[in-house]
Amino acid sequence: MADVQEPVAEQAPAAEDTSATPQASKQDINPWSVSGEVDQDGKVKAIDYGRLTTDFGTTLINDALLERFEKVTGHKPHRFMRRQIVFSHRDLTAILDRYEKVRFYRGHDMESLRLMLQQNEPFFLYTGRGPSSDSMHIGHTQVFDFVKWLQDVFDVPLIVMLTDDEKYLFSEKRTVEEVMGYSRTNAMDIIAIGFDPKKTFIFSDFEYVGGAFYRNIVRFAKRVTYNQAKAIFGFDGSSNIGKIHFASIQGATSFATSFPHIFGEDESRTRSIPCLIPCAIDQDPYFRLTRDCATGLHYAKPSLIHMRFLDALQGPGSKMSASDETSAIFLKDTANQIKNKINKYAFSGGRETVEEHREKGGNADVDVAYQYLQFFLESDEELAQIKSDYNSGKLLTGELKAICIKHMQAYVAGFQDRRGKVTDETVNEFMAPRPLEWSGNPKIPRTDLVVPVTLKTDGASTESGDGKMSKSQQKKLLKEQQIAQKKADKAKEKEKAAASAQTAGEQ
Amino acid sequence: MADVQEPVAEQAPAAEDTSATPQASKQDINPWSVSGEVDQDGKVKAIDYGRLTTDFGTTLINDALLERFEKVTGHKPHRFMRRQIVFSHRDLTAILDRYEKVRFYRGHDMESLRLMLQQNEPFFLYTGRGPSSDSMHIGHTQVFDFVKWLQDVFDVPLIVMLTDDEKYLFSEKRTVEEVMGYSRTNAMDIIAIGFDPKKTFIFSDFEYVGGAFYRNIVRFAKRVTYNQAKAIFGFDGSSNIGKIHFASIQGATSFATSFPHIFGEDESRTRSIPCLIPCAIDQDPYFRLTRDCATGLHYAKPSLIHMRFLDALQGPGSKMSASDETSAIFLKDTANQIKNKINKYAFSGGRETVEEHREKGGNADVDVAYQYLQFFLESDEELAQIKSDYNSGKLLTGELKAICIKHMQAYVAGFQDRRGKVTDETVNEFMAPRPLEWSGNPKIPRTDLVVPVTLKTDGASTESGDGKMSKSQQKKLLKEQQIAQKKADKAKEKEKAAASAQTAGEQ
Repeated sequence: MADVQEPVAEQAPAAEDTSATPQASKQDINPWSVSGEVDQDGKVKAIDYGRLTTDFGTTLINDALLERFEKVTGHKPHRFMRRQIVFSHRDLTAILDRYEKVRFYRGHDMESLRLMLQQNEPFFLYTGRGPSSDSMHIGHTQVFDFVKWLQDVFDVPLIVMLTDDEKYLFSEKRTVEEVMGYSRTNAMDIIAIGFDPKKTFIFSDFEYVGGAFYRNIVRFAKRVTYNQAKAIFGFDGSSNIGKIHFASIQGATSFATSFPHIFGEDESRTRSIPCLIPCAIDQDPYFRLTRDCATGLHYAKPSLIHMRFLDALQGPGSKMSASDETSAIFLKDTANQIKNKINKYAFSGGRETVEEHREKGGNADVDVAYQYLQFFLESDEELAQIKSDYNSGKLLTGELKAICIKHMQAYVAGFQDRRGKVTDETVNEFMAPRPLEWSGNPKIPRTDLVVPVTLKTDGASTESGDGKMSKSQQKKLLKEQQIAQKKADKAKEKEKAAASAQTAGEQ
Repeated sequence: MADVQEPVAEQAPAAEDTSATPQASKQDINPWSVSGEVDQDGKVKAIDYGRLTTDFGTTLINDALLERFEKVTGHKPHRFMRRQIVFSHRDLTAILDRYEKVRFYRGHDMESLRLMLQQNEPFFLYTGRGPSSDSMHIGHTQVFDFVKWLQDVFDVPLIVMLTDDEKYLFSEKRTVEEVMGYSRTNAMDIIAIGFDPKKTFIFSDFEYVGGAFYRNIVRFAKRVTYNQAKAIFGFDGSSNIGKIHFASIQGATSFATSFPHIFGEDESRTRSIPCLIPCAIDQDPYFRLTRDCATGLHYAKPSLIHMRFLDALQGPGSKMSASDETSAIFLKDTANQIKNKINKYAFSGGRETVEEHREKGGNADVDVAYQYLQFFLESDEELAQIKSDYNSGKLLTGELKAICIKHMQAYVAGFQDRRGKVTDETVNEFMAPRPLEWSGNPKIPRTDLVVPVTLKTDGASTESGDGKMSKSQQKKLLKEQQIAQKKADKAKEKEKAAASAQTAGEQ
C-alpha cells in the first residue's frame, strides 16, 4: 500500500507533464501521488471526490445503501459513512448480501429466487499500509479506525498487509532492514488502534511471502501483462521489474486462499471467500486489476469501500507529510504540541476581525478545525450545531479551534495510552500465522462451511457441522500454529537484535 | 531454468522473423528456444558453440585452464571438459583460486602479493531444472552427471533449483499443482543421479520462495529495469509481469545469503561466498544479468561453466523432445527400446553399402552413436580407437551402434536401479531446508570462517574456531531444521494426495 499521506513525487511514475514552470493541471490521484487540480493562478483546489468516482468507475455511497447497511448489520453507519468521508464503493452490496445470507442468482427473477441460506459464510477485511517511516500521523490512522469499527460490526477476520517490499522497491535509499524495522514499529501503531488479536493477522511482505501466498502471487502475475501494468500505474521502460510485478503481491492478498492458516487448505472451498477492502481511494487501481484477475482465477472478487484523505493543517488541497512537522498532528505529539499546531497552523474559515466574523459569519466548509471535527466528533447534532454557530458568527475561530483541540488531544492521548501497552510480544502475537476466531452474523449460527469453528478461550465450543473434515483441518491448523510460533520466536530474537541497533526514539 | 531440450516455441518471446515460409536464419539460443542456423535450402546446421562464446562474451576453456584445474583439484578433468562438451566459462579461475586459497589483490604486483590464506573458504554449486514434465530423457541428466562429479571433486554444497513457478508462468495450460507435481518427480530423477543428501539441497520455487530468499529476490528486482529484461530476454508489452520479474528468482539463487540454513544468518560474512553454476549455455543470459546485480549488491559474483547440448537421435541441429518418443532416449526406456531406437533412428555417418564403407570409411563427426559415446564413454583411448576404426572403414555402422547401445543400456539401467530406491522420504530429506555438511579442499583444515562445522554423523566433530558465534548459529539452524521437518511432513501428505490423483505411469 502506498502511503497516500506522503506522496514521494520523485519516485512516482512519470506524469504526462514534466515542465518545470508551475501551470494549471488536472487532479491526479494514483497509488504514489495525490494532487488536487491546480488552477490558472497556480492555486491548488480541493480534491474533487465526486469526479474521482466517475474517473475510477466506482459507485457513490447513497442513503439507500446506508439504510441497507443499518438494516443488515443492526448498526448505525459509522460517522465517516454518514458524512461522505467514506464516500464510494465497489460491490459493498455483495458483502452485505453475504452477511445477510441472501443470494441472488443471475438470470432469474431476483425476488422470487431470493434464497435465504442459513449458512454463516465467512468474508474478511483486508487493508494495509506502506511502512515508510516511524512517524505515523493522524492521517494514517483514520482508515484503521474505520476498519476497527467494521471488524466490531461484522465480527470477521481482518488481514493487515505491511508492504515493506513495495517501500523498498519504490525508494532510492531505504534498505531492506530499514523497511522491515518500520513494519514492526508501524504494526505497533496499528495494534494500538485497538484491534482484537483473536481475529487480526498483521503481516510484513518480507516475512510472509511464500507458500500459498506466493502461489497466488504467481497466479496473479501470469494474468497481467506489462502493457496493463503500464496503463494502470504509468510505468515505463526505466521502471524496475520489482515495481512492475508488485501489483501481484498487493492483489494476491485479496484472496482467502493466500491464508490457509486462517481459512483452511481446501482451495475448492476457500476460493469463494471474498474480502472487503477499506482503503484510501488512491489504492483503487490495484484492486480494479485484482477484480479482473479474480474472475479469471475463479476466485471471489474483492469488494471495496473508499475513504477520502484527511487534509493537512494548511487546508484543502494540501497534504499531510511525515517530513513536515507543521503539516500534521503526529501520534507522538504532546497535548501542548497539538494545541499549538492547531492554533498556529490550522487554516481558518473565519473573518479578519472578530467584529466582521460576528457580523458576516465564518465558512466551516474550508475550516480545517471544523474538517477535523467531522472526522473525530461522533455526535451529528453537536457537529451541526457547531457548523451553524460558526457560519452564523456566534462561534469564533478561537472557540472552534478549542473544541477541535480538545477532541484531538483526547484522540492522541487515547492512542498513546494504548500504544504504551504494545510490546514486542504483542507484535509477535498479531504477526504469527495462526488460526483466527470469529463469529460473523450473530443472528445465524456459525457452521463449518469452510473452516472449523475454533475453540473459544472461555471454554464454550461450537459444535462442528462436518466432523470428519474439521478434524483433519484442525490438525493441519495446529501444525501451522506450531510452526508459526517457532517463526515468531525467531522473529522476536531477530527484532531484539535489530532494535538494539536502532533505538530511534520510540515512545 | 528453462528446459533447453524442450523449447516451447509458441511461448517464447517473439522472434524477429515470424513469416510462415521457411527461410535462412541465424542460430538463436536463448533460455526458451534453441535453434541452429538454417541455410538457404532450409537445412538446419549444427550449433556453432565457438560463435556462441563470442556472442555471449564468455571464455573458451583451453588446455591451460584444464591443466590448472587438474593441478588445483588433483583430479583429471571430466571427460566432458576434455572433449569440449563443457566448453566455456565465466570466472572459473576465481573458483579455483578460492579452492586453492590463493587470493590476488588488484592493483598490486600479482605474484609478489600472492597470499596463501590458510582458510577453507566455502563456495557452492548451483544448478537447476525447469520441471515441465515427468518424462526426463538422457539430454536432461548430462548436466547433473557433471555436477555430481564436480561435487565429488570439490566437496562443496550443491543447490538445485526447480523452477516450477517459471514453468507455470511460461506455459499456457499447466496448473500450479501440475508443475509442483513435476518438481517432486523431477527431484526423484535428480536424486537418482547419485547426489549426497548431506551436501545437497533441492528446492522448488513454489515451496522455498520466502524469507531471506525473497529479500534477495526483491533486492535483485530493484536493480533491473524493464528495458534491461526486454533487451536480454526479448520480452514485449504482451509479456506477463511474472515472466518479466522471473530473472530475479533465478538470479537470487546465486547468492549464499538466500540460504541461511546452509551458510548462516550473518550476511556480512555470507555475502562473500560465491557459487559456480554448471549449466547449459542457453541459461547464460540470466547469469550475465546476475553478475551485474551481484556487483551492485556487494555480493560475490557467480562463476559459470557452460555445457553444450546432447543432440537428438536425428543428428546435429535437431533437438531431443520429451513429446517425441523417437527423438530421445528416455530414462524410462527398456534395454530393448534403447536398442531399437538407436538402430532405427540414430543418424549415421556411415556409407550407403558395407563395401563403400570398408573402402572409403565413415564420418564419426556427424554420427550420433559416436557423439553419444563422447558423452558416455570414459576412456579417451577407446574413443579415439573407435573414431579411427570408423573413419577408416574398419568399424561398421552396426558395430558402432552396438557399442553405443551397450553403454546407453548400462547408463539407463544404472539410473533406473538408483531411481527405484528413491522414496518420498528421500525427496523430503533432500528438499528440507537444513544445514549441510562439507569439507572443501582436503589439504586445508576447515575453519569456521562463515558457518560452524556441523557435527559428523560418525561422531567425529571438528572444533569450532569461534565458539560464541557457532553456538547461537547452531541453535538457529536447529530451529530451522525443525521447522523444515514439519514442512516436509506436510508436503509429503500433500504429495501423497496429489500422487493418488495422477499416477501417470511412474516407473
